[in-house]
Amino acid sequence: MIVDQAVYAEGRRMPCTDLSAELARVRQRDGQDFIWIGLKDPTDAEFDQVQDALELHPLAVEDAITGAQRVKLERYGHTIFAALRTIRYVDETSDIETGELMIFVGDRFVVTVRRGEAAELVGVRKRLEEDPGPMVEFGPLGVFHAILDTIVDTYLAVDEEIQRDLDQIEESVFAGAGGTDSGTIYRLKREVLEFKRAAQPLVRPVTWLHEASGPMQSPELKLRFRDVADHLIRVTDHIETYDRLLTDVLNAHLAQVSVQQNADMRKISAWVAMAAVPTMVAGIYGMNFDTMPELHWALGYPMVITFMVLVCVVLYRAFRRSGWL
Amino acid sequence: MIVDQAVYAEGRRMPCTDLSAELARVRQRDGQDFIWIGLKDPTDAEFDQVQDALELHPLAVEDAITGAQRVKLERYGHTIFAALRTIRYVDETSDIETGELMIFVGDRFVVTVRRGEAAELVGVRKRLEEDPGPMVEFGPLGVFHAILDTIVDTYLAVDEEIQRDLDQIEESVFAGAGGTDSGTIYRLKREVLEFKRAAQPLVRPVTWLHEASGPMQSPELKLRFRDVADHLIRVTDHIETYDRLLTDVLNAHLAQVSVQQNADMRKISAWVAMAAVPTMVAGIYGMNFDTMPELHWALGYPMVITFMVLVCVVLYRAFRRSGWL
Amino acid sequence: MIVDQAVYAEGRRMPCTDLSAELARVRQRDGQDFIWIGLKDPTDAEFDQVQDALELHPLAVEDAITGAQRVKLERYGHTIFAALRTIRYVDETSDIETGELMIFVGDRFVVTVRRGEAAELVGVRKRLEEDPGPMVEFGPLGVFHAILDTIVDTYLAVDEEIQRDLDQIEESVFAGAGGTDSGTIYRLKREVLEFKRAAQPLVRPVTWLHEASGPMQSPELKLRFRDVADHLIRVTDHIETYDRLLTDVLNAHLAQVSVQQNADMRKISAWVAMAAVPTMVAGIYGMNFDTMPELHWALGYPMVITFMVLVCVVLYRAFRRSGWL
Amino acid sequence: MIVDQAVYAEGRRMPCTDLSAELARVRQRDGQDFIWIGLKDPTDAEFDQVQDALELHPLAVEDAITGAQRVKLERYGHTIFAALRTIRYVDETSDIETGELMIFVGDRFVVTVRRGEAAELVGVRKRLEEDPGPMVEFGPLGVFHAILDTIVDTYLAVDEEIQRDLDQIEESVFAGAGGTDSGTIYRLKREVLEFKRAAQPLVRPVTWLHEASGPMQSPELKLRFRDVADHLIRVTDHIETYDRLLTDVLNAHLAQVSVQQNADMRKISAWVAMAAVPTMVAGIYGMNFDTMPELHWALGYPMVITFMVLVCVVLYRAFRRSGWL
Amino acid sequence: MIVDQAVYAEGRRMPCTDLSAELARVRQRDGQDFIWIGLKDPTDAEFDQVQDALELHPLAVEDAITGAQRVKLERYGHTIFAALRTIRYVDETSDIETGELMIFVGDRFVVTVRRGEAAELVGVRKRLEEDPGPMVEFGPLGVFHAILDTIVDTYLAVDEEIQRDLDQIEESVFAGAGGTDSGTIYRLKREVLEFKRAAQPLVRPVTWLHEASGPMQSPELKLRFRDVADHLIRVTDHIETYDRLLTDVLNAHLAQVSVQQNADMRKISAWVAMAAVPTMVAGIYGMNFDTMPELHWALGYPMVITFMVLVCVVLYRAFRRSGWL
Ligand SMILES: [Mg+2]
Ligand SMILES: [Mg+2]
Ligand SMILES: [Mg+2]
Ligand SMILES: [Mg+2]
Ligand SMILES: [Mg+2]
Ligand SMILES: [Mg+2]
Ligand SMILES: [Mg+2]
Ligand SMILES: [Mg+2]
Ligand SMILES: [Mg+2]
Ligand SMILES: [Mg+2]
Ligand SMILES: [Mg+2]
Ligand SMILES: [Mg+2]
Ligand SMILES: [Mg+2]
Ligand SMILES: [Mg+2]
Ligand SMILES: [Mg+2]
Ligand SMILES: [Mg+2]
Ligand SMILES: [Mg+2]
Ligand SMILES: [Mg+2]
Ligand SMILES: [Mg+2]
Ligand SMILES: [Mg+2]
Ligand SMILES: [Mg+2]
Ligand SMILES: [Mg+2]
Ligand SMILES: [Mg+2]
Ligand SMILES: [Mg+2]
Ligand SMILES: [Mg+2]
Ligand SMILES: [Mg+2]
Ligand SMILES: [Mg+2]
Ligand SMILES: [Mg+2]
Ligand SMILES: [Mg+2]
Ligand SMILES: [Mg+2]
Ligand SMILES: [Mg+2]
Repeated sequence: MIVDQAVYAEGRRMPCTDLSAELARVRQRDGQDFIWIGLKDPTDAEFDQVQDALELHPLAVEDAITGAQRVKLERYGHTIFAALRTIRYVDETSDIETGELMIFVGDRFVVTVRRGEAAELVGVRKRLEEDPGPMVEFGPLGVFHAILDTIVDTYLAVDEEIQRDLDQIEESVFAGAGGTDSGTIYRLKREVLEFKRAAQPLVRPVTWLHEASGPMQSPELKLRFRDVADHLIRVTDHIETYDRLLTDVLNAHLAQVSVQQNADMRKISAWVAMAAVPTMVAGIYGMNFDTMPELHWALGYPMVITFMVLVCVVLYRAFRRSGWL
Repeated sequence: MIVDQAVYAEGRRMPCTDLSAELARVRQRDGQDFIWIGLKDPTDAEFDQVQDALELHPLAVEDAITGAQRVKLERYGHTIFAALRTIRYVDETSDIETGELMIFVGDRFVVTVRRGEAAELVGVRKRLEEDPGPMVEFGPLGVFHAILDTIVDTYLAVDEEIQRDLDQIEESVFAGAGGTDSGTIYRLKREVLEFKRAAQPLVRPVTWLHEASGPMQSPELKLRFRDVADHLIRVTDHIETYDRLLTDVLNAHLAQVSVQQNADMRKISAWVAMAAVPTMVAGIYGMNFDTMPELHWALGYPMVITFMVLVCVVLYRAFRRSGWL
Repeated sequence: MIVDQAVYAEGRRMPCTDLSAELARVRQRDGQDFIWIGLKDPTDAEFDQVQDALELHPLAVEDAITGAQRVKLERYGHTIFAALRTIRYVDETSDIETGELMIFVGDRFVVTVRRGEAAELVGVRKRLEEDPGPMVEFGPLGVFHAILDTIVDTYLAVDEEIQRDLDQIEESVFAGAGGTDSGTIYRLKREVLEFKRAAQPLVRPVTWLHEASGPMQSPELKLRFRDVADHLIRVTDHIETYDRLLTDVLNAHLAQVSVQQNADMRKISAWVAMAAVPTMVAGIYGMNFDTMPELHWALGYPMVITFMVLVCVVLYRAFRRSGWL
Repeated sequence: MIVDQAVYAEGRRMPCTDLSAELARVRQRDGQDFIWIGLKDPTDAEFDQVQDALELHPLAVEDAITGAQRVKLERYGHTIFAALRTIRYVDETSDIETGELMIFVGDRFVVTVRRGEAAELVGVRKRLEEDPGPMVEFGPLGVFHAILDTIVDTYLAVDEEIQRDLDQIEESVFAGAGGTDSGTIYRLKREVLEFKRAAQPLVRPVTWLHEASGPMQSPELKLRFRDVADHLIRVTDHIETYDRLLTDVLNAHLAQVSVQQNADMRKISAWVAMAAVPTMVAGIYGMNFDTMPELHWALGYPMVITFMVLVCVVLYRAFRRSGWL
Repeated sequence: MIVDQAVYAEGRRMPCTDLSAELARVRQRDGQDFIWIGLKDPTDAEFDQVQDALELHPLAVEDAITGAQRVKLERYGHTIFAALRTIRYVDETSDIETGELMIFVGDRFVVTVRRGEAAELVGVRKRLEEDPGPMVEFGPLGVFHAILDTIVDTYLAVDEEIQRDLDQIEESVFAGAGGTDSGTIYRLKREVLEFKRAAQPLVRPVTWLHEASGPMQSPELKLRFRDVADHLIRVTDHIETYDRLLTDVLNAHLAQVSVQQNADMRKISAWVAMAAVPTMVAGIYGMNFDTMPELHWALGYPMVITFMVLVCVVLYRAFRRSGWL
């Protein structure tokens, strides 16, 4: 489905009906005028017309239609094709949801293809239309930068959310606040891995974008892409740390559970051991021997009971001292 | 055994009887005509004639006959020799079965050598004969691409199957659905490693195929091999993740089993501890002292029984509160 | 907030009021005169004037105002922008506290931006004013070196503190002095990771500073930056070792706790087992059979008691020999 | 000890008495004639004459006499010096035994030095004398290839033996066939590491031998060394996998032992818990209260016994259902 | 403290009083004459004169006086500055003690600075004076080689000691000889890490010394440094293996302790379980029901005792068969 289609001439939005004719026209003009087409979950047929008019490479179009691509940035002739992951943090479930966003950046056109929910993109076009500076100055590459910058900003936001979840888990594990189970830790680890798969593979191509060997001419644009790369690396550095800390926390949690269970067992066994002595003594004085003098003592019974109580008190104190009770 | 042998002139299939003569003829013609020979588990003798006519290098032929080669891509003069792994997922046993496929790609010939079951290859020749475009345009390299593409597509399919198996295992481990044992997890891990050995070593040579330093002249063919490399990397990225997740799941499963066993022990011990108190009290009133006043109380027996029941109820509640029962 | 602002001409401090005019003046003079501006938690507005006069790049200024940047060193034209972490060790809690320090190093100016508590920096300006040699000889780069050197020296100091904490933990774990819990070890590990995030990313840029491809002309200044890089690598080498040793110590500690708990359980069970035999024997002689000859023996009772004691002594010795008691 | 010494002229073996004179003679002749000297555990004195005549470097000779060298390939001027590990699998003990083999490959001579048992080498000279093709064509480098090829072939054989041992261990661990202890797994791991130390360091130099920067001129010889490198990498790939799988199997085995022991404990405790109830009930009816009506019921005794049996049956079924018995 | 100071002219030792004058003199002469100064724990003041005369760089001198440097090799102009670790194995405690050795290698001088106990160095000067070949031929670099060679030889010796300690630990763990505790293993691991910190960082600079880009002209000297690098790599390869094996041994040891403790618990519980049945039976016949026919049987008592013994024998055999006793 074609969501939006327009020509941006000197930053002003103009209608765009005949794609091929319009493309020829912007190519004749000097400056950075370009066409921007927005697609959402396009089918093969819907894409056909765009592909023909803009001469997009079939392999890139196939990726854009199929979806489920790995994060990457490829060049087909002078056109850049990027497959990105948009990311959304669902606070109730601490779940990370990912959408896909593909971009074709040509000399005089941009095609953005959304798959799944990537609501953050809606704002980019609006913001650029209100402040068309980057479009006038850099053309399609300015749009590309604005989109990448927005996506990486959402990564930074999700990064903070994960940081917060990790802090909570750590506190609950080490302060013994309870309420954590290994499933929660494992699930966060899984989300972190999903996040990593979105952010990590972008580092190399975005770094390449601002390097000498990259496709940018404008030094200013290079600096802007370097800024995006820098923020991206901040995220991936954190992700690496989260991954390792979660492993440590998981192990610590499992060890704690095991230690607690063992301590419970020790406590129960200590109580059973305390009951074993009176039971044994009672058994002895329950024997039916003809001659058991103690049985006939007037104070025999209270003495035995006192003995039992004493033994229990002594044992209780000893166990207490050992930290078993 | 020679399974199939034909000349493809302008994409049309023609019979090929005298190999050497035919080779000389296609070499004289302009264009991309070539001979395609298909072998299956060939013996030394069966290979002799092909080797002589096409001047294949004895070391490559030795590999093709011996089999059990590692996945690789080698150049012998102008001929490319590739050893690949075909892969098949057996759903009932979640087992991955691998076959071998060797390919010689020369200037005017392709030799494919199948070892073990690699049924997927049958379809490639048929498909190319129906749509001979790549053969006409790219000749032997077009066939090579079609085969690589098909194999990597099966990798993508197996990738999804493994993803599904892993999801099942995760659910069963973390939802406590039971039915998982460490053997299942370990076996999947082993299959993942087998898969990795098939896919991982292909990444570097297939990447090289589409690079500037590679053997391809046609830019279009480069893009097609890059597409294959891209899909391949998607698979190997996933495999890496599966490997790590399986280790985590295995550890989580083992920890769960241990935690469950410890909880069982605690429960049993708690019940035993509850029985210990009445046993002790009963032992005391089973003693044979002459003077035990309680024994002669009219309500002595019901009072003791009530006391026993009370103790058990109190203990039961305490244990319950601690989560031990 | 602008904390300090001055011109350093031939090492002597001079007042600086009109930034743009002063900058033009130092640029006309030969030698290494420069302006040094110190900011602390600056707001957008406070930075505006400095940014305009010195033509600082907006992206670098944005980083300096936003803070929470990763440690890095970037070039914007001829200006170097560095984001550093100052570090402070709080001995009572063995906690590492980090502040941020950003530096702009231009041809004739230095701008330092402090965020959070980074008290160590106060001394650098004072020291340089007292011994202005490096400022006279190297200008802004001399200031940059002095700051980097000071920061890395605090890293060396913190390194030693962590070494001491680790030694204490090791001793307490392996000498069985008690008083260690896994939380302490984990927390130190976390501080070590925080330290690592401050020091590790500096290695590459500081190394680059003294390499042939770096921005330094003066061989002497190169040697000085190499010295800083050398000390920095000493720190990061140690951090790597601490990280691994802490993992080992943590595992050893957890294993010890588990071993101790198991030994406790064995001890309790052994005592219960010792009580089980007399209880059984007493039960037997508590049976009410008409014909139990032993019950009528004169020495029946003392013999049974002796037997019980004997059994217990034998068991006690056996358990002792096995190391169970 | 000099084991063998001969001149190979046009592939034919000729006696060689005066080393220096003979060397001068083969150097004058065109073609690939050369001297081959075989030593075994040579002493300093025995080596002296060879060293002088062939002008071997003292450092290489020192290595050859001292032994216990790491696997390596070094150039001393135009002479290649290689230190290799021969390997032998002792099936009874699943032990890998390693011997040492050093080779000097000069322009017109080969010196092979065996240390320890490296019986496989005996066959190489015999095979080359019977089929002298490689000696005639490639001279000393042909001998070097034949030896390397033979050694790597024994690596492939040992690889298969280890594969088989690993399969056995896996089966015994996961099929619960018993008979495995952690010592066996650890010992195999140790042998795998020994194997790795023999094979891994060869990869780089053997790869270098067939590269453009290597010492080979003949393209055919390059292909042959590449074939050896390829087989070698197959081995080292496998070794890496074995190493990881053995770690996993070891952990799985240890976990199984622990799980089994815990299950045993649970079973024993469950039986004890079953006995605790009748014991308690019996204790109650063993009390000596004056008024215990049940004691005087005609069916009191059989009713209590029935109750005890019932409780045990109920408990048995419950435990059974929980999988505890 | 200046320990020794001499001129070596044509290998002969000559007194050296006025450092600057002597240096000027050896610089005028052809050949490899040089001054060798030996220092031990020098203070700032003691070093001043040497530093001035030889024009040593202040940063290098600072390192030499401060000590506790990481192992490294740096160039200051034409002077090489190396910081090395000497190592000593204390057999009684299996402890590795490290000292520091710094070397300045100039065009016509060598300065060696010892910190801590590095007794091995004493012998180097003596040996070179007795056999001055390397000094005559290579001058200061010959001394540098002799010192490096000696240090690496002590590494080889310590390597063997550690090998022996590891063998002992392995035997004691896997042969169940006892006498090992996790502290011993951990301590050896720590020493291995200390050893690694001494040897590992030397590999790269010593390798660089004999490479084409290195500072050596003489091919013969290059070969000698390559020999040192080779021995060094042998050591670091081993260290890497020790590290991994120690981790494995530690885990195996901990697992064994746990398995043994669990087996003990099972054994104790099995004995307790055996006693539980007779206790229960005795309890039953200790009940005070009016009508318990068995109590009046003439053979009631022996029959019950026989039954108890039988049950115990049957249980004992069953437990034995299960490997629990
Ligand atoms: Mg949250
Ligand atoms: Mg998710
Ligand atoms: Mg941004
Ligand atoms: Mg921004
Ligand atoms: Mg930024
Ligand atoms: Mg336990
Ligand atoms: Mg399935
Ligand atoms: Mg399989
Ligand atoms: Mg495909
Ligand atoms: Mg396709
Ligand atoms: Mg899933
Ligand atoms: Mg694709
Ligand atoms: Mg402290
Ligand atoms: Mg902190
Ligand atoms: Mg410093
Ligand atoms: Mg300093
Ligand atoms: Mg210490
Ligand atoms: Mg220094
Ligand atoms: Mg075997
Ligand atoms: Mg061995
Ligand atoms: Mg071979
Ligand atoms: Mg062969
Ligand atoms: Mg197998
Ligand atoms: Mg081969
Ligand atoms: Mg246990
Ligand atoms: Mg020792
Ligand atoms: Mg030490
Ligand atoms: Mg040596
Ligand atoms: Mg030597
Ligand atoms: Mg050994
Ligand atoms: Mg050597």
